[in-house]
Parts: sequence; structure tokens; C-alpha cells
Amino acid sequence: MSSNSLPALIDALRRLPGVGQKSASRMAYHLLQHDREGAQLLAQALQQAASRMRHCSQCHTFTEDEVCDTCRNPQRDASKLCVVETPADQAALERTGAFRGLYFVLMGKLSPLDGIGPKDIGLSRLFERATDGRVQEVIVATNFTAEGEATAHVIGEALKARGLKVTRLARGVPAGSELEYVDLGTIAHALVDRR
Amino acid sequence: MSSNSLPALIDALRRLPGVGQKSASRMAYHLLQHDREGAQLLAQALQQAASRMRHCSQCHTFTEDEVCDTCRNPQRDASKLCVVETPADQAALERTGAFRGLYFVLMGKLSPLDGIGPKDIGLSRLFERATDGRVQEVIVATNFTAEGEATAHVIGEALKARGLKVTRLARGVPAGSELEYVDLGTIAHALVDRR
Repeated sequence: MSSNSLPALIDALRRLPGVGQKSASRMAYHLLQHDREGAQLLAQALQQAASRMRHCSQCHTFTEDEVCDTCRNPQRDASKLCVVETPADQAALERTGAFRGLYFVLMGKLSPLDGIGPKDIGLSRLFERATDGRVQEVIVATNFTAEGEATAHVIGEALKARGLKVTRLARGVPAGSELEYVDLGTIAHALVDRR
Repeated sequence: MSSNSLPALIDALRRLPGVGQKSASRMAYHLLQHDREGAQLLAQALQQAASRMRHCSQCHTFTEDEVCDTCRNPQRDASKLCVVETPADQAALERTGAFRGLYFVLMGKLSPLDGIGPKDIGLSRLFERATDGRVQEVIVATNFTAEGEATAHVIGEALKARGLKVTRLARGVPAGSELEYVDLGTIAHALVDRR
């Protein structure tokens, strides 16, 4: 048994999304040749995150605590709940500084073709969270893809039936863009939603 | 101090070559949400490789032993030594099955612009290895880039001065290609090196 920790490392790196055989080899050689400290650091970070990270009991995002920082913040407006697909989407919204309410992170989206139904993304947990008596408006901020739109539709119908106000992020022409170069679907939506 | 193992993981992933902020976030979220087993596995593989891997005392490639499998193989022809830049290049040559000699892996290339000189890639170790009395021909298989060619030139001159036969991989038209689509430099080289 000799020199088998290199192929094992390459195989393990291939489990990362978007990393194939060649990238994994390049990463492994780079770490071994130029950055052993980085390799040790990454190993520790992986172990710590994998053992400590769990889901916020309120918004379901990743946190090390029972309830995440955002949900614990008394400055946030508990009457508005924004539904996003991933923590990355939540981070994008936070960077705008334009939303002071709370979040619910689905950690996925409905995708019947991949066999992902309402149970897999915990929609019942969202419905429970949204009907806590304090939430008055649910802003559905799933992505504007086919699957994101379908998810938004299902969530919207279910929450409206529970008597909540449900809104969706506006669709329209992106800031800084010229009409000539915007796709037709976007322009059509912007026309319909004109204000 | 709360939920800081996620940013730590993202920072650690960014040390991988070709991974920026967005890819690192995507990797971290993927591992935490869908593949905690993969995260643990990668952490172990990193630690094992970083602690066990060292350089073969003969060819300088990565191995867990004093001497690597290839150098220990008595079936290989010790009179031919092939010089490559990286273990990945060595693997590409091995896959052809066309070379039965031994290797020397530079683990880099001369690159004056980046301040990488003969000492950094251990050329003196190569000269020692090539003049062991058994090596009769050194095949320089560095890449056909500006830096690879410069490295080949320096190695070739130094080894010829030591009385060794030095050859270079042939330059020419790649297999399966049509002349119309081959770049002019390649065709010119193929003309000069015609046989």
C-alpha cells in the first residue's frame, strides 16, 4: 500500500460542486506543493463547520446557535417575512440594505423533475412560521426561474388561503440596462407591471 | 461569537486555485446542506495527504514512500529519463503507454517574471539525477509554452555540457487535425521538423 492518499484527496475534492477530475488534480497538486498550511486550514474549517452548523429553528438558515443572529435581532421588523431559496440569496438581499424584516430560507425549491416536492423543502415549516400571528406580509423572493416561479406560486396560494398578504419581488428592466439589449420577456413583464 | 464557522469555511475554500467568493460559497452551502459526509471525507483526505505526502528522493514526484512506485519498478528502462513540469504531465505521458523509462518531475518551470529561477525548481537535483551513470538519454517534455521552452533550453544546454544525449518531444500537427485549422506556428515547426 503506497502513495494512495493523493488519489483519495482528488476523489474527495471531486465531491465539491463544479469540480471535475482535472480541477481536482490541480487543486490537490497546488495544496501539496504550495499551500500545505491551506490544506490543514481547510481540513479544520470543514470539520468545524460540518460538526457545528445546524439550522435556525425560526428561519431555517445555517447557524451555530438555536436561533440565528438575524432572527434574534430585536431591530428587525417581525411583521414582514421574506422567503428565499438559499442563504446566498438572503445575503444578496441583505447587501442591498433595503429590507429590515425577517427571512425564511427554503434551502431549495420545488423541482418535480428532480423529485423535490413540498415536503423536501419543508413548506409546512414555512406555513407554521408565517402564521405565528406577528407576520402580516410574506414577500416571496424565490428566483425568477421556472422552478422558482412554481415554488412562489405554491407558497403564494397556500399563504393567501391562510389569510396572509403575499407579495412577490417586482419583475422589470434591471438598473443600468438599455432596452435594446434587454430580453423580450423582461420588457413584456415591465410593461404589464408598469407604475 | 456565533455562526463564524461558515465564513471560515468559505475563506478556506477560497485558497483552492480557481475558486472565488461565489464558488466557495456555493461549495460550502452544498457540503453543509447535501453532503456532510463528503465534508468529513474531504477533511480527512486533506489531513492525511498533507501529513503523509513527500517527494520521491529520485524523481521528486509526490509519494508516501522514500522512493515512488515508478522509480522502484525494475521493469522500467533506467537509461531514459523524461523531464516533466508536473505530476499531471507525467500522468498524461503514462496514459499513452509509449514510454517505459523513468521520470524527473520539476514541480514547476523557470519563470523569471514570477521570480522563479533554477534554484526554485531544483535544477541541480535534476543534474545530479541525470549524471548517475545509468541515464543515457534525457527527454525534455516540459510544456510548449514560452516558460516551458525556456526551461527546456536551460536544461538542454546544461545536460549537453555534461555529455548527455538530450532530446525534446516532437513539435508538429496534432493527430486528427486538419491543416486548415492548425495555427501557423505549428505548421511551420512541422515543416522544419519533417521526416
